[in-house]
Parts: sequence; structure tokens; C-alpha cells
Amino acid sequence: MDSSQFREAGHAAIEDIAQYYDTLAERPVLPSIVPGYLRPQLPDSVPEEGEEWSKIQSDIERVIVPGLTHWQSPKFMAFYPCNSSFPAMLGEMYSASFNAAAFNWICSPVVTELETIVMDWVAKLLNLPDCYLSHGEGGGIIQGTASEVVLTSLVAARERIIRRRLKDVPEGEERMDKAAEMRGKLVALASEHVHSSTQKAAVIAGTRFRTVPAPKEHNFSVTTAALRQTIEECKVKGIEPYYFTATLGSTATCAVDDLAGIAELAKEYPDIWIHVDAAYAGSALICPEYQHLCPPLAAFDSFNFNMHKWLLVNFDCSAFFIKKRKDLIDTYSITPSFLRNEFSESGMVIDYRDWQIPLGRRFRSLKVWFVLRTYGVKGLRDFIRGHIKLGEYFHTLLTSRADLFTVVTAPAFGLTTFHVNALSASASTLSSSPANKPNPAHEAYLNDFTNSAEAQFREDATQVTKQVYEKVNSQGEFFLTSTVVGGVYIIRVVSATPTAEEKYLKSMFDVLVEFSEEVLGKRKA
Amino acid sequence: MDSSQFREAGHAAIEDIAQYYDTLAERPVLPSIVPGYLRPQLPDSVPEEGEEWSKIQSDIERVIVPGLTHWQSPKFMAFYPCNSSFPAMLGEMYSASFNAAAFNWICSPVVTELETIVMDWVAKLLNLPDCYLSHGEGGGIIQGTASEVVLTSLVAARERIIRRRLKDVPEGEERMDKAAEMRGKLVALASEHVHSSTQKAAVIAGTRFRTVPAPKEHNFSVTTAALRQTIEECKVKGIEPYYFTATLGSTATCAVDDLAGIAELAKEYPDIWIHVDAAYAGSALICPEYQHLCPPLAAFDSFNFNMHKWLLVNFDCSAFFIKKRKDLIDTYSITPSFLRNEFSESGMVIDYRDWQIPLGRRFRSLKVWFVLRTYGVKGLRDFIRGHIKLGEYFHTLLTSRADLFTVVTAPAFGLTTFHVNALSASASTLSSSPANKPNPAHEAYLNDFTNSAEAQFREDATQVTKQVYEKVNSQGEFFLTSTVVGGVYIIRVVSATPTAEEKYLKSMFDVLVEFSEEVLGKRKA
Repeated sequence: MDSSQFREAGHAAIEDIAQYYDTLAERPVLPSIVPGYLRPQLPDSVPEEGEEWSKIQSDIERVIVPGLTHWQSPKFMAFYPCNSSFPAMLGEMYSASFNAAAFNWICSPVVTELETIVMDWVAKLLNLPDCYLSHGEGGGIIQGTASEVVLTSLVAARERIIRRRLKDVPEGEERMDKAAEMRGKLVALASEHVHSSTQKAAVIAGTRFRTVPAPKEHNFSVTTAALRQTIEECKVKGIEPYYFTATLGSTATCAVDDLAGIAELAKEYPDIWIHVDAAYAGSALICPEYQHLCPPLAAFDSFNFNMHKWLLVNFDCSAFFIKKRKDLIDTYSITPSFLRNEFSESGMVIDYRDWQIPLGRRFRSLKVWFVLRTYGVKGLRDFIRGHIKLGEYFHTLLTSRADLFTVVTAPAFGLTTFHVNALSASASTLSSSPANKPNPAHEAYLNDFTNSAEAQFREDATQVTKQVYEKVNSQGEFFLTSTVVGGVYIIRVVSATPTAEEKYLKSMFDVLVEFSEEVLGKRKA
Repeated sequence: MDSSQFREAGHAAIEDIAQYYDTLAERPVLPSIVPGYLRPQLPDSVPEEGEEWSKIQSDIERVIVPGLTHWQSPKFMAFYPCNSSFPAMLGEMYSASFNAAAFNWICSPVVTELETIVMDWVAKLLNLPDCYLSHGEGGGIIQGTASEVVLTSLVAARERIIRRRLKDVPEGEERMDKAAEMRGKLVALASEHVHSSTQKAAVIAGTRFRTVPAPKEHNFSVTTAALRQTIEECKVKGIEPYYFTATLGSTATCAVDDLAGIAELAKEYPDIWIHVDAAYAGSALICPEYQHLCPPLAAFDSFNFNMHKWLLVNFDCSAFFIKKRKDLIDTYSITPSFLRNEFSESGMVIDYRDWQIPLGRRFRSLKVWFVLRTYGVKGLRDFIRGHIKLGEYFHTLLTSRADLFTVVTAPAFGLTTFHVNALSASASTLSSSPANKPNPAHEAYLNDFTNSAEAQFREDATQVTKQVYEKVNSQGEFFLTSTVVGGVYIIRVVSATPTAEEKYLKSMFDVLVEFSEEVLGKRKA
């Protein structure tokens, strides 16, 4: 394909992509294919002769689009969003064309320099403490995912505590043995509701992992007392906490750990690296009304949020801020001779490869820069606030049918969780409840599961909620996620795609009502 | 930006990108900016109001392009290439527009299914042993970089040997202590010329790392005897080899370890995971004349090569093949309730998240599919063979001026390494040598450095080579890499970008000759 063929193909692709976005809302969000649908439609090896682009392009609509889950659809309300935007797509286009394995400054200086600058922009936009800006000892870097960030910081934490404890032991066999012994006793901590990435990182790092209780009565958040107790329990058992993931927006319910209290506690445990994972909710910190969450971050070691979730930058783009970049470099810097160059040696430039696990790097700051400039501070805040309002709207819908639904967690950063009410023992109570009044039995059951009648009730609620949930997803029109939290099976709804609107939430709610009534036998199937 | 504005901006971007490629060969490959050039040219925070695209786009030419190193330029002969192609760029465009965090099958079925299919295509294209295809116990996955692949396989190797050794020890404290003790005694091995990624991965995994000698007399390759000796030496010292990176194309000289011999040796050490890192050279395996390297792979555990280096797929795209996918899943599978779904539970689908470190995944198979179809088997082989020929051409140029240059390693997969001859003691010999005849003193010196006169000679050669190298790069017209191998300071030349041509090699060679003569005082500066 030469540049004139690329011009033709590229223009056609732009039309194709615009058309895809224009028709997105009309498509069911989930594909209606079965596992293995694709293989019979494709040849089983690379063609001998090259093919024309027109033939390839026509296959996109024929076999690719039917297998997509449409994450940008307004009917996508599952997981957390993974938003794209047109300027971010343009960023990916330019990045792909300026293609480079930009592993150090000289490999493409602008890749490093723009990243440092836009990460400073982002830090200021979120009102992060000054220590996360690049002018001092810290700074920001773009990594791929929150999982990568958690692993990067966790391994650096492991090595930091070992360096501190073994600072007087000279390099050699004895030190290696001692370090290995220490690693075996180290334990990473996080909320019981933390994303699985911390556990996975602890496995990779070869250390232990333990959860900190965060029960319903604390709104699924880790309290200072709970964290202190877990730390002390570990120490009594001879295992040493070295890393704690503080959650700013848990996966299940978007719970926020007690950051202010934990910031105080951190002073007592200076060898525990505290990382704040704000993968989804962090984007809300661009709004002043959420920035009360920021000052405690100064007491921690690192912070990240995924701009690819809720801030309109295509996947992948996790913004990772570190207080002391030396803490990363001390672990990750390995400089073989082929990577030596006057710029890196001089210390005048940042070599981001020493802040991360891989060597090569994509030019991801370009899409961030395009998005921040296209929307501006105001546009981005409007975007976030729109979704916060949608969360409140959905909550209102739910509470209007308290006979059918029990809210488990009220809207947090746009996410509401609920379950369908069981008929079971309280069926009569339920059906006689006025539509807009919550059933006190459910409230009680959420506060205390010890009673066996309540256990039965919970079991029944799980069953009907599961039925309703599976029915919604099997239709494919909307996509929701369920999970289990505090022993309760819940449905999570978060409507935060760029195309989200009240009307889609209302349609989805109508479907929920219809299916719930059907499952509960209040309506003919 | 709405879809009609995107249409306009997108079409302009396509023109811009085509224009960039059309003018690439005229630009110096290295930018002429100084560290910190960018910050004074940009505001220091996000603008309050959004900006027009036209303003943003004009900044690309104003501040971004001047800071680029042009990896696609025909004058880029540094490191290894990182090639893009127009179909791959189209792949990135569509991938960005179908944006999703495709961490399991249901998150976008086509992302998983196309990846499995194209990785099978790639395995067949390289004539990899059948065990690396998806129909059995193995299969392929796209990861970001070779560093990521090495870490992924190395940690899986660490856990596999622990599972095997501790299979009779029940879960619990005792087992954790034993596992920690084992990890501290485990050692990862690789050629002394291996890429730094293995050492970095060993640090992350918390295990030891030791190199296997691969001296000049074995063409910088690991022999079976050297590997056996290193393994046995480790065992004597009570440390246990559990992972070996076999190199198919080392970073410095593109050396290939003795794969056939190591495949035999592997039978004696079934607990050592052998991974073959063919990051650059692996692409050549698409040509039958290189496929004699493939049968030994059946004896190993995993294999990877970077399609983003030499096979026209944009960065990032490392093709990672695993013989038993269970070896990855046993380490990486952690399934919290929010990721449970009927498809994954049924075992009918692949969840690539259990084959890798991150959770989310980009739709990278699309660009691979576009490239493979656009070029076809023939087109891809022609592409590789063209670069092999260019390597031979450059070698011919070098040997035509044996008075100035000594070839250290003859072209291997297009890469030639050499140094500038020192004047020093043998200056008179040198200047009297006919231009096309190698100087026997240099040959001798490469074979034996023990003699102190030769040590002096080597020191002098290093100095002049370094001067010439730095002068070439400081001009910015061409970009080369230097390194040190077997105590010799060498310049590496590999001309394997899509736009590479003899004429650029010839121009660069003329510059080398000019600067070498100048440095050696044979020509007026």
C-alpha cells in the first residue's frame, strides 16, 4: 500500500468510523454471536498474494462489527466505562504514524517531553499535591493499565523496604539470602473490595497478600481502625506489611477508603508504600467538589487513575503519579551499553523506561494533549458532572419502585448498586407496599444477615436478581454487570459513556421493571 | 468534537500523515532540538475553554514534528527497526474507534477470536512447531513488548517449579515459607548478550540472574556446553536454574544461541523453562531459508518475536507463543465475581487476561490481520529478503575499505557490526595496506586480547570508533547505534525500515569513510 492508496483507504476509514459512531445508539450493545463464530468465516492461513484494501475493508462490516461489544454505546452500563473521543482517536492516528519504540529521550524526544508536560497538566487539573509534579522529586508517567501501575509500584515498594532494612548488609550471597527471606515474609494489603490487580501483583512479586475488612456498615470502605488492626495482626504473626492499595472508587460499589485517616496512620508506618488506585473515580477529581479527596495524597507514595475509563482518552492510558521517582528508578534502572547516550548519562532528560516494566513506549501523551485541549477544563467538568447527574436520576427511578428494588449503595461517582426484592416470606408485605416506599424488611436484611430467615431472604433475592440480570444481558440491548458484595448479589449500573442520556437509562429501567415483575410473577411473561 | 468535525479533522489528518511519509526521506533522522525544548513552547496548564482542532493540528507541525526521531526514515539504521505500515495504521484507527477494555471474551468477542486466529496464522507463517497452535494445549497471544513477554513467562516459570517441588505440601504458612525459601534460591539464566529484559524480569520476580558466557570464538552465541556448565555451577552452589532465555538474534550482534543443541539439553532439565526471545530476528522465520531454526522450538516452553520490529505492524505488538497455556493460567488466573460470566465459566472461550499481567487489552489483532492480508506471504518474504540483501551490500562496502574498517560480525539478519581501525602502533602498516585488503593485525586482535600491545590497539580503536560514531549521530542525518561486545567498541548498522534502499546505505557509508579518514588524519577536517 503506497501513500496514495493510503489516502484513499484512510479517507474511507474516516467515513466508516464516523458512520459507526453515528449509528451506535441504534445497535444492541452486545453482539448476537456464539463462541467460535469467527473461525469458519476466515481462511486458515495468510493468503499467498496480497489482497486489495477494498476487500479487507468490506470484511470489517461483514465479520468484525458483528463480534463487537459496543463500549461507546449509550446502552453500555456495565463494568466501568472505557470512553473514547474523536480527538483521542486522532491522537492514536498520529501516534501510529510517528511510530517509534521510544524507550529513551533520544529515541524521540517529544515523546518524553510532551508526556512530562501533559502529566503536569493533569496533576494540576486534579489539584494533586505539588509533590506529584515533575519539577521536584516526583512526576507523572503514562502506563497502560491500573494493573501495570499496581505491579510497578508494588515491586518498587518491595525493593524499597528491603533496601532500607538491609542497608548495612554488603552485596553478595548473604544479602541475597536475607532479601529472599524478607520477601517471603512481606505482605501486600488492600481492601477486601480492591480490584484483583493487587492480588495478581503480589503473586507476581512473590509476596503475600491479605485483605482489610471493609464491611457494609462502613459503606464498604477501609477505615483507619481496620487498616491498623490488619497491620498489627500481620506483625504479630511475623509477616510484614510493605504495601497498601488505598481504593478511591472500588470496583463493586465505588467505595472510597478513609484517605484522610489513612494519611495520618501512614506517619506511623513509613515503610509501607501507600498507593491510591483511583482507576475509575479519579477522573472526578477534576471537579472542585471532589477535590477534598486530594490533600491526603501528599502523605502517600503514588496515585493513579485511568484516563481511558472516564476522561475520554482511548484505552490504554493510565496516569501514574509518583512522589519520589527515585523509588522507581532504584528498582527498574538497568542500563546496558546499547542504551547509553550522552543525554541519558547527563541526567538532563527523563528516561521513562526506568519508571516502568517494559522498555519500549508508545506516544500516548499525544491523545491526552488533544483531549485536554479540545474539551478544556470546563468541557471536561461538564462531562463528568453530566454522568453524576445521570447516576442520581437512575437512583430516583430505583427508589420510585421500592417495591421491586432495594438500593444497596447510593450513587457514588455515577454508580448505583441494587438488587431485586425477593418475594419469599415477605411476599405479601412486598406486594402490599406502595410503589414508592422502601420495604423495611429489606433495609433490615442489609444491616444484618445473621438471622436465618434473613439468610433465606437473601438467597431468594439473589435468585431473582440473578434471573433479572441474566435476562437483561441475554437480550443484548443493554449491558449491565452483577457482582457479590457483603454476601449480597447486586446489579451495578453506571451510565457514563460519552453518549449517555437519561432516555437510555429510562428505557433500561423500564426493562428492569418489566423483567422483575415477570420474574416475581406480577406480570404475565 | 462531533462526528462531522471529526470527519473534517480526520480527512485532514490522513493528508497530513501521507504527506509526512512522502517527505520522510528528506528529513534528517534525528531532531535538532535540545533537552527541554518543548516546555517553553506550551502553556503550563489545560486551557479553560476548549480549543478548535485547526489550532491543535497546526501545533503538530510547529512543536511535535521538530521533536521526533524518524524511525520510519530510510536513514534510520540504529537499534533494530520499529516498522510501521499503512495497513497497520488503519488497524490502529479502527482499533481506537472500537475502543474497549476487552479483558474477557464477552467484553468484545471479536477481540479474542481474531487474535486466536491471526496468531495461528502467524505460527503457520513461521512454520512453528504444531504445539504452538491454539487447537491443542498451546496458542499465541499478542502482548506489548518482549520485556512484558519475558516477565510473563519468567514468573510463570518460577511458579511452575515451585508447584512441582511443593506438590505434596498443603496450602498454608509452611508452604508459603518453603516457597519463599525456594524463590530465593532460584536463578534465571541467559546469554551474556541477552537483552536487559531478562535481568529486569528476574529483579521483578525476586529471583537471581546469571549470564552464560558467549564469547567471540562462538560468535557470541550460547553453546550447549556453556549452558550445561553454568547450570551445573549453579547447582553446586545450591542455587537452582528455573528459566533460560535462549536468544534468537542478540541485541548487539544478532547472534543465535545453539537452539538445536539446547533442545537436546532441555530433556535433562525438564524443570527449566526455556523461552526463546527472537524479538527482532524472529520475523525472518517467515522465509523457508531460515526455518531450519524452528524444529528445536518444540522442545522449549515459549517463543516470542516483535512484529512491531521487522514485520510492518506498528508498535506495540509482540507475538508470544506458549506450548502449554495452562502454565500461564495456573499463575495468572484470579477471577473475582465481577469478571464471572457464563462464557468464561463454561471454558468455551479463551480469556487472554489469564495469559498476561494486565487485565485490559487493546484490539491489536486487527492491525496484524490487515498487514498479513495486504502483503500476503510473498510480499512479506520479499520485504525481509530485501533487508537481508541490504545487509550484504553494506558488508561489501565495509570490506572494500578494509584499511578503515574491521567487520566484527558479518551480516546476520541484516545487521553488521564493525569498528574503525586504530592508527596507533600499526599506523604505518595501515596506511600502506591496499584499500581492499583486511589488515591482519586487526584479525589477530579480535581473536586474542591478552597481548598488551593489542590491548592498547583495542583502546585506540575504541577511541576512533567512538569519535566517528558520535560525529555521525551529532550531524543528525543518519542514526546509528554503538555498543560494546567482547570488550570491543562497535558500531551496529541495520537498514531495515520499509523505505530502506541501497542509496541511503551508500550515502551513510560515504559519511563514515569521510569521518574516519578525518579522525585518522588521512583527510583535512
